[in-house]
Amino acid sequence: MATALETVEEHRSHGGIQGVYRHASASTGTDMTFSVFVPEHEEGTKLPVLWFLSGLTCTHANVTDKGEFRAACAEHGIVFIAPDTSPRGENVPDDEAYDFGQGAGFYVDATQDPWAEHFRMRSYIEQELPELVGGHFPIDMNRQSITGHSMGGHGALTVALRNADRFRSVSAFSPIASPLACPWGEKALGGYLGADRQAWREYDACALIEDGARLPALLVDQGTGDGFLEEQLKTELLIEICEKAGMPANIRFQDGYDHSYYFISTFMAEHVAWHARHLKQSGAE
Amino acid sequence: MATALETVEEHRSHGGIQGVYRHASASTGTDMTFSVFVPEHEEGTKLPVLWFLSGLTCTHANVTDKGEFRAACAEHGIVFIAPDTSPRGENVPDDEAYDFGQGAGFYVDATQDPWAEHFRMRSYIEQELPELVGGHFPIDMNRQSITGHSMGGHGALTVALRNADRFRSVSAFSPIASPLACPWGEKALGGYLGADRQAWREYDACALIEDGARLPALLVDQGTGDGFLEEQLKTELLIEICEKAGMPANIRFQDGYDHSYYFISTFMAEHVAWHARHLKQSGAE
Repeated sequence: MATALETVEEHRSHGGIQGVYRHASASTGTDMTFSVFVPEHEEGTKLPVLWFLSGLTCTHANVTDKGEFRAACAEHGIVFIAPDTSPRGENVPDDEAYDFGQGAGFYVDATQDPWAEHFRMRSYIEQELPELVGGHFPIDMNRQSITGHSMGGHGALTVALRNADRFRSVSAFSPIASPLACPWGEKALGGYLGADRQAWREYDACALIEDGARLPALLVDQGTGDGFLEEQLKTELLIEICEKAGMPANIRFQDGYDHSYYFISTFMAEHVAWHARHLKQSGAE
Repeated sequence: MATALETVEEHRSHGGIQGVYRHASASTGTDMTFSVFVPEHEEGTKLPVLWFLSGLTCTHANVTDKGEFRAACAEHGIVFIAPDTSPRGENVPDDEAYDFGQGAGFYVDATQDPWAEHFRMRSYIEQELPELVGGHFPIDMNRQSITGHSMGGHGALTVALRNADRFRSVSAFSPIASPLACPWGEKALGGYLGADRQAWREYDACALIEDGARLPALLVDQGTGDGFLEEQLKTELLIEICEKAGMPANIRFQDGYDHSYYFISTFMAEHVAWHARHLKQSGAE
């Protein structure tokens, strides 16, 4: 049986429907909100899906408003889903900082109090939300790809590395390459998972690759004018580990671009087209 | 001499620069903020410009974030300028309603107290801002076109009807066709200009056409799912007056689209391409 899904809003856009939906999440124990763009399609057909995981402070709304993905998704016939970045609400623990607590779930299942009860974004993104949307939208769950930005780039990489058979292709915009090796990651994984850094490795793209995980296809764009590049994102660690592992990866530096949606929106259509090529290749319907 | 212009922010986007700028306006007696997208171009060349006037409650930011105009402007080599919709600030009169006062300037020069001192958006858009941007950005002021949304569609139409020699082409998204004939217009023009409806005619697209003004080329898109269509926008009045005047106009109804930026962004690239054709035709450099 399909779980109850509340329609928050729906708008016709680029020939399809851009919607925002809310549901009671069993993973987080809260209401969760996400957006879905469904392009125009023949009744009864199922479309491939591209997941977009957002960065620190974001909700579904940032990419939905500013991502400029709809024209490309309409052209290629791809459903686009943008989840929230954490559980939210008055009864959910929070932190005053922008990089921890609500809006900063880091796509982990927290094990430490007070976070463990609600901050279960890994289970939410890996299991609950795919099952939910598969029952409500015209999606062919055998054709999934994933992308994301910053913390959400970290999310896309690590979710895909742990579930390589689920995704045809993986991309990221200015991802956090290694939470084990940057202040954002040290703070968040330390807070949510505790001091044992061994437990962090399944949430670190570089460590997962080092430990043997592989991606089917990887595209990364990183702006050279991004103020977080040197201290937090450390793209060079991802390049090094891919080379060391012999894993094909197209990791590009884009001259003068910063960390904003002005950067993401510039390369979004290209990412969607790249995913479309992988989503349309072979594979069972 | 160029007037002082403060750079609020600049981001590389779609190969060009998306900036936000602030200056002390002589027209409004306040600081005014606007955004400019300058596509990549050869040093020393000047580009045509497309003005976008925004709707009720908006600042420059709405279309800058959600308008999806940059890819098309980059492709066609067009500068895109988005002004604010009114003077703002603690010392500027305001009204609690969303459709009057700050955020609702209606592109008029107010004559009534307390609005007359600051609410001079006609002078600002018609004279001050073009002179300012001409001195600061690589714009060929002989190649201008204009568009806008809702109240800003009304603005685009009326600014262009009063200054037909300035613009190569005019378009609008869900414009207010006739402020004389709708509650938004009755309230705003009554408040800013007083009870004499004769004085409103130069701010009413239908009245201006009736009084002999003409546009060089007109494209309008209007969603059929727009909740403001029947009471406020009244597209049929614009269709009727264009037919009566024998003025060529392409006024299109778009099935199921509403009044939001999900609608605007869907047709933005087409509007930019249409303006580009007019901006590139003949004409002195």
